Amino acid sequence: MNNFQFQLQTSIVFGKGERDNIGKLLKPLAKKILFAHYGGEIVRMNGLYDTVTESLKNNGVEFVELPGVVPNPRVTLVREGIELCREHGVDLVLGVGGGSVIDTAKAVAAGVPYDGDVWDLFVDQKKLVKALPVATILTLPATGSESGGSSVVTNQDTKEKIVLANALLKPAVSILDPELFYSLPKKQIANGVFDMMSHIFERYFTNTKDTDLIDAMAEAALRVIMKHGRIVYAEPTNYESWCQVGFGGSLAHNDLFGIGRVQDWASHKIGNFLSGMYDVAHGASLAVLTPAWIQYVYKENPEMFVQWAVNVMGVQGSYRQPEELILEGIERLKSFIEELELPKNLAELGVPNKDDFEFIAKRLTGADQGEEVGIGGLKVLGWKDIVAILEIAWG
Amino acid sequence: MNNFQFQLQTSIVFGKGERDNIGKLLKPLAKKILFAHYGGEIVRMNGLYDTVTESLKNNGVEFVELPGVVPNPRVTLVREGIELCREHGVDLVLGVGGGSVIDTAKAVAAGVPYDGDVWDLFVDQKKLVKALPVATILTLPATGSESGGSSVVTNQDTKEKIVLANALLKPAVSILDPELFYSLPKKQIANGVFDMMSHIFERYFTNTKDTDLIDAMAEAALRVIMKHGRIVYAEPTNYESWCQVGFGGSLAHNDLFGIGRVQDWASHKIGNFLSGMYDVAHGASLAVLTPAWIQYVYKENPEMFVQWAVNVMGVQGSYRQPEELILEGIERLKSFIEELELPKNLAELGVPNKDDFEFIAKRLTGADQGEEVGIGGLKVLGWKDIVAILEIAWG
Repeated sequence: MNNFQFQLQTSIVFGKGERDNIGKLLKPLAKKILFAHYGGEIVRMNGLYDTVTESLKNNGVEFVELPGVVPNPRVTLVREGIELCREHGVDLVLGVGGGSVIDTAKAVAAGVPYDGDVWDLFVDQKKLVKALPVATILTLPATGSESGGSSVVTNQDTKEKIVLANALLKPAVSILDPELFYSLPKKQIANGVFDMMSHIFERYFTNTKDTDLIDAMAEAALRVIMKHGRIVYAEPTNYESWCQVGFGGSLAHNDLFGIGRVQDWASHKIGNFLSGMYDVAHGASLAVLTPAWIQYVYKENPEMFVQWAVNVMGVQGSYRQPEELILEGIERLKSFIEELELPKNLAELGVPNKDDFEFIAKRLTGADQGEEVGIGGLKVLGWKDIVAILEIAWG
Repeated sequence: MNNFQFQLQTSIVFGKGERDNIGKLLKPLAKKILFAHYGGEIVRMNGLYDTVTESLKNNGVEFVELPGVVPNPRVTLVREGIELCREHGVDLVLGVGGGSVIDTAKAVAAGVPYDGDVWDLFVDQKKLVKALPVATILTLPATGSESGGSSVVTNQDTKEKIVLANALLKPAVSILDPELFYSLPKKQIANGVFDMMSHIFERYFTNTKDTDLIDAMAEAALRVIMKHGRIVYAEPTNYESWCQVGFGGSLAHNDLFGIGRVQDWASHKIGNFLSGMYDVAHGASLAVLTPAWIQYVYKENPEMFVQWAVNVMGVQGSYRQPEELILEGIERLKSFIEELELPKNLAELGVPNKDDFEFIAKRLTGADQGEEVGIGGLKVLGWKDIVAILEIAWG
């Protein structure tokens, strides 16, 4: 196991009815807050808008609103939020929504004390040395942004989508109230479940030796998320199963499962690129890429993938060849993906053709600039490897 | 699952050589610290005393020493520490040692800003509203005090041993450097391993329904701690196994495994009473009491104990009666206890006779004062239940 430093500083407040407590929780932390949300129906839908604003008022917490967050959130709205905060003397940013809203809130929090354009912080991350505190109410469990320190924002002008990562951006407090998940569209549930699983896979699949404790806990979380992910997909008002999936999604991305080991993240990097290029859903891109990635890299560390097939996917038969076990594990993962009606190949995902594979692979590795830097931890992928994975994912 | 609030605020710095970084880690947090330790050989033994003092000096962190901590740490030494802190204007308390040292450091940190005798805070815990920050270097993985918010201190005058619990006492930073565990006596290793297991058992055994995620992760941690606990007991310089046990012990007691559920803690309460009365080791008392407690209470929730027998103790045979599976689980736990050469019954633990069973049980439940309040969560135990468990533990 490698050395590591680990801290979960976010206070997670979990359970039904906890959304009512947002004002009480924020009262000791702030006098005036920025309340960022999607705007329109999404927040008003289940009465959440009224719940939040009443709870804030009842506790004497003043607020300014920043509505209008969209998926793949934009730096232009972040800039508006920063202006509002400065103008009104805001001392905390509350994001009520899914990953896009929370990432927007974090970017605003980072930008307020910074003396320059917020996008500088994304381009040169050392510049981030101070941020306002952030709080969240999660409405879509998927990205884990409610307990992590990263913010993914898109700059429409430069066509860049950059992850800003800094422990300063970890929320001070996050409310997870599973009743808020009842009205999610099925497609978002499926994407969210696979996104969480991928956050564990990216950490779990490693070449680092002697990682029994984290391996076993990650395997436990994966089994439980798959079991209860199936249930909430079929039955979106199942409170108890949402508890397992909801808290599972938070644990999946707070880096508990990543400590002391080399992590991978190649599937995420390729997936993010596809999302930016073809505007495809993040979770769905991972559902297509992950089995293809496993298929391509398993020979690099068969022991690790046998362990996964047996302990996570429930493949049995100690008398069988390692490869047989792994291939059955991949088949079982594909069946799970089908059950959740996620795309099975790049065409179903929305990638129109194979024409851009080489462009994507070269851009991802910098090979188009003449200096290739591979991506991934378990196996470092050059551009030709990425094309091969995209070919497998094409089907 | 029940609602919960959860925060791990301690920054865990983990791995070989990390002890060298104590000065660098404390520099941004404090100008002058109190350095609490056992004194004498224990800290000097492996060069740790020199490592710490040099690292502090190299980083310009001044320190005052509080040596002389003993097992079942005393409030008299805590008072001395508080005086030293006030006299020297200390702004952080560092404990270098096992649970006794860390608990002493926490009690000092609580007492410094309090305008009265520190023991008041133990007797009336609402009085604790402020504390100095605490840091630790762990030399004996067992109590989990390095990542929890409690401090257990004994008052020799009143014959009381009280747990002070408050999130303010969670260390800001804790160094776990497994190389420091190589020179531990075997008995302390065994006691420590069982103490960790018990911290998980006390949370895991519950009547709360729908706790799949935490159940599965707790089971994973128990299996890994048992596997690698056996290894470090046989081979105390096995670095990789100490990594699993060391971080496992920290996770065991930071309450991750206790969220959203009713916890038990009856075995700990009885064990603490025995420790106070007969000066027996804490971990050893749990090794004697836990199998007896399971034996006595399993009929209360057979499903939970079957799950434990199968998922933790590896008992097989779905065609068998639940009771058979549970009893084999208990036998396997007893074999593990024997392997670690822990006491198998109260006599081996050091309890001289059965004469005090009724006194102990009545005092624990308040039945001696005429108002019986049962202890435990999975089954609430009255004084007669406790006598029955002690009878089983007598053998």
